Amino acid sequence: MAKISFFPLAVAPTLGEVAQWTGAALSRGADAGRIVRDVAALDEAGPDDLSFFDNPRYLDAFKATRAGAVLVAPRYAAQAPAGCATLATPQPYRAMAEAMARLYPQAVRPRSAFGETGVSPAAFVHSAARLEPGVIVDPGAVIGPGAEIGAGAVIGPQVRIGRDSVVGALASIACALIGDRVIIHPGVHIGQDGFGFAMGPGGHLKAPQIGRVIVQDDVEIGAGTTIDRGANRDTIIGEGTKIDNLVQIAHNVVVGRHCVIVSQVGVSGSTAIGDFVALGGQAGLAGHLEIGAGAQIAAQSGVMNDVPAGARWGGSPAKPMREWFREVTALKKLARGTASREPEASEGMTTDRRSSAPSPRRPAG
Amino acid sequence: MAKISFFPLAVAPTLGEVAQWTGAALSRGADAGRIVRDVAALDEAGPDDLSFFDNPRYLDAFKATRAGAVLVAPRYAAQAPAGCATLATPQPYRAMAEAMARLYPQAVRPRSAFGETGVSPAAFVHSAARLEPGVIVDPGAVIGPGAEIGAGAVIGPQVRIGRDSVVGALASIACALIGDRVIIHPGVHIGQDGFGFAMGPGGHLKAPQIGRVIVQDDVEIGAGTTIDRGANRDTIIGEGTKIDNLVQIAHNVVVGRHCVIVSQVGVSGSTAIGDFVALGGQAGLAGHLEIGAGAQIAAQSGVMNDVPAGARWGGSPAKPMREWFREVTALKKLARGTASREPEASEGMTTDRRSSAPSPRRPAG
Amino acid sequence: MAKISFFPLAVAPTLGEVAQWTGAALSRGADAGRIVRDVAALDEAGPDDLSFFDNPRYLDAFKATRAGAVLVAPRYAAQAPAGCATLATPQPYRAMAEAMARLYPQAVRPRSAFGETGVSPAAFVHSAARLEPGVIVDPGAVIGPGAEIGAGAVIGPQVRIGRDSVVGALASIACALIGDRVIIHPGVHIGQDGFGFAMGPGGHLKAPQIGRVIVQDDVEIGAGTTIDRGANRDTIIGEGTKIDNLVQIAHNVVVGRHCVIVSQVGVSGSTAIGDFVALGGQAGLAGHLEIGAGAQIAAQSGVMNDVPAGARWGGSPAKPMREWFREVTALKKLARGTASREPEASEGMTTDRRSSAPSPRRPAG
Repeated sequence: MAKISFFPLAVAPTLGEVAQWTGAALSRGADAGRIVRDVAALDEAGPDDLSFFDNPRYLDAFKATRAGAVLVAPRYAAQAPAGCATLATPQPYRAMAEAMARLYPQAVRPRSAFGETGVSPAAFVHSAARLEPGVIVDPGAVIGPGAEIGAGAVIGPQVRIGRDSVVGALASIACALIGDRVIIHPGVHIGQDGFGFAMGPGGHLKAPQIGRVIVQDDVEIGAGTTIDRGANRDTIIGEGTKIDNLVQIAHNVVVGRHCVIVSQVGVSGSTAIGDFVALGGQAGLAGHLEIGAGAQIAAQSGVMNDVPAGARWGGSPAKPMREWFREVTALKKLARGTASREPEASEGMTTDRRSSAPSPRRPAG
Repeated sequence: MAKISFFPLAVAPTLGEVAQWTGAALSRGADAGRIVRDVAALDEAGPDDLSFFDNPRYLDAFKATRAGAVLVAPRYAAQAPAGCATLATPQPYRAMAEAMARLYPQAVRPRSAFGETGVSPAAFVHSAARLEPGVIVDPGAVIGPGAEIGAGAVIGPQVRIGRDSVVGALASIACALIGDRVIIHPGVHIGQDGFGFAMGPGGHLKAPQIGRVIVQDDVEIGAGTTIDRGANRDTIIGEGTKIDNLVQIAHNVVVGRHCVIVSQVGVSGSTAIGDFVALGGQAGLAGHLEIGAGAQIAAQSGVMNDVPAGARWGGSPAKPMREWFREVTALKKLARGTASREPEASEGMTTDRRSSAPSPRRPAG
Repeated sequence: MAKISFFPLAVAPTLGEVAQWTGAALSRGADAGRIVRDVAALDEAGPDDLSFFDNPRYLDAFKATRAGAVLVAPRYAAQAPAGCATLATPQPYRAMAEAMARLYPQAVRPRSAFGETGVSPAAFVHSAARLEPGVIVDPGAVIGPGAEIGAGAVIGPQVRIGRDSVVGALASIACALIGDRVIIHPGVHIGQDGFGFAMGPGGHLKAPQIGRVIVQDDVEIGAGTTIDRGANRDTIIGEGTKIDNLVQIAHNVVVGRHCVIVSQVGVSGSTAIGDFVALGGQAGLAGHLEIGAGAQIAAQSGVMNDVPAGARWGGSPAKPMREWFREVTALKKLARGTASREPEASEGMTTDRRSSAPSPRRPAG
């Protein structure tokens, strides 16, 4: 990545070395001695970067990439742009994970602190910041003026917390830059590894996660919410966005400005959410989607496709609200017209309620 | 509010001042010099209180309120009861947020502790209570006899923990009163701000949350669960209720006695749940609903309407279990009768499982 | 249980005493003076163990049990195998809870630590392990070589953490054995009580949870995930399995090897998941199910039945993917053919978005 990283680069290999590590075949005519200076996503990579192309959804990005070299399945290799070397392999994502583990060995294991005391002498805590008891601040961290850090919170190395921001008790923040006037409630976890594995019949290979989490100004993040750091780009929460409790934001997700994300929503990796989007409670979004600005997604929706700007969607799988209601109504009518013998009721998904049922009609006190 | 508050009132303005702060129009004949001594919900307000009316669901409460003054949309102002001054504004909830930010400036930012050490000398910890290492107890907190506070837990200012209650490791409790024999598991977060914003095209205005969380006797609360404090009334968990892990209880929710709330349920703001209600895992309840005593809600239900006492509901949107099963059955029959070309299978909402699929038939070891 | 337990057995009663505690009727010919030396599940119990049979799903296990005595409903008592005494009671689960509370009184309240300092002198921390600041390690805990324990983490009594494992900041681990090279992210809670209650009209009786959590080698567990310890057997996470953030794993669940469990999944008690199973985000599994090896469950599925090995299921209630898609398609067609007046759109399950709606078409910045 072209920007400041939380992880040091361990080596700068040649393309030949990358080919050897991964078993990939370097394209004819490519310079095996060319140096790889970093890794990056297809659309962010430059001539010194290694990238990979696996999900066909990103074919356009592959065709237009400025990356110096790309790990890619053989059948797509010919579509690389001029000047881009290809490293052909049947499993490009796995090969990228292997290469990244060599380049960024420290990113394979979760980021550890180095502090020996509560606040590291190598951290900068502004004199007008206030730290409650039991706070741990690691080396290189910066806490801005007016910031308040709650009891027992853990601020990882080089994390920056802006002016007048509040971090709740027992929150942990790593590999992240936090803006001004941000409110982070208790028990929030920001910046841990994203959930990236190259799956295989012999087990799953962990893909190093070298991105960051960027939380812009005036964001609020509810208790127990988790925001993973990016894999090969940043996870970003846009200015003024409000996130409720127990929400999951996966790696590489970009949330626009002034969005509202209600409790227990899950957003899968690499999905991009426009400005002023509203996501109802317990909605789930698949990965690699685009949700247009101003879209409104009903509670418990399961979004598996891109949503146009300004649209209102609901249902699982989600569709335009109008269609969803039409389906709900049509099914209701259909069921009413059906001669029916109901199956036995079953409660499902309850835990250990094996014994006597509760008295169902005890009046409210 | 008439009861002890965790937040001090900063000013006692006149109705004229409230009108000026919010741009609302004071009703003809109202006394602009009348003093506002507090804020309260429509049904709890008295003659010295300011309230607001925005959600039409509460029209009856508005018509019957004893509040001294109410922020209200112009079209409803005429329906205020005699003796109740109205402050007409197109955005009553936003205006209330503005007024509350003046009255309770400390409630706009999350509640911070004041302790300088693990256990504040201004806290009261009973000699027969036991605190594990690393516990933080803020000034004014009271820990009862026989109570056990787990390692790293954070007990906020003025919180009360009753006799023989247990607080798990790394839990945080603020703005809350906890009864006797309550069991709070690790990582629970109680009493942080509710998720209340007056939304608008220029950004979302935070509504101060000045209520409390009341947890009655013999309640159990599972790991990672979050319970927000009330906005303008209390969030209440009734006696003997058992809550599983990772449940979300929003502001102003009232849960009755002896309810069972299974893991990952979400209850939206201001919903009232009767006694002996059972909520299956991952069920979601919309806000401002009434769930009658003894109702049983199936797992993954999406409840968008009031549920009568003793009823059994399921589905999303939820309906009586009988109707839901009828629909499930009717749809199954319909699909069987349809000549169908299935679309391509898609997994949806998985994170980064881009590479080789797992061997699907490897025998269990 | 035949193996090392985290809870000491307080008494070894006779069958006559168990009958007296629980009000159960000892079977004719049984020896009232026979000693009960432990409790165990039907399939794990031996001649000195007390077990119970309540859920008819386990009838075969009851008929084949080697338990010395079983608490059972009167109508099933005659089906006990030879040599197995029966204790007949209308509420076997409640009776078991009562008996277990006598045998394991320490398991009724959450497990507490005994340490007085950060790292107990009675813990064993390998010289090549690294503990960050603020870690609490209780007596009898063992931290292996190369292990790293994050800031503020709480390691309970007798917990074992294997070689080269990583525990994130603010995680808590109790009643658990953790293998080698395991990665546990921040805010994970492992080993707290499962959610087990014998429900009743007078309130719910807590069932002591005396099992453990076994996390095998090379497992990864995401931030905020909760894994409860077993009730009367162990909760097990198999080798190489990867679990995302905010997942709930209930008591007695057995997850096979190399599974992938995406964010916000909930698995209810006693469900067994085979090797290489993939569970999509927000899927929910009912209790006491068997999910065959290699099965793939789509995101947001609600699984209420056993799933065969290698099958792909989706929907709520879940069914084979092919059937689910057929239903989705059939409903879509049906709705298109329906002359429809759509009901008013309603957003549902959002929190306090009462006021002005966001501008839905503001362009992305």
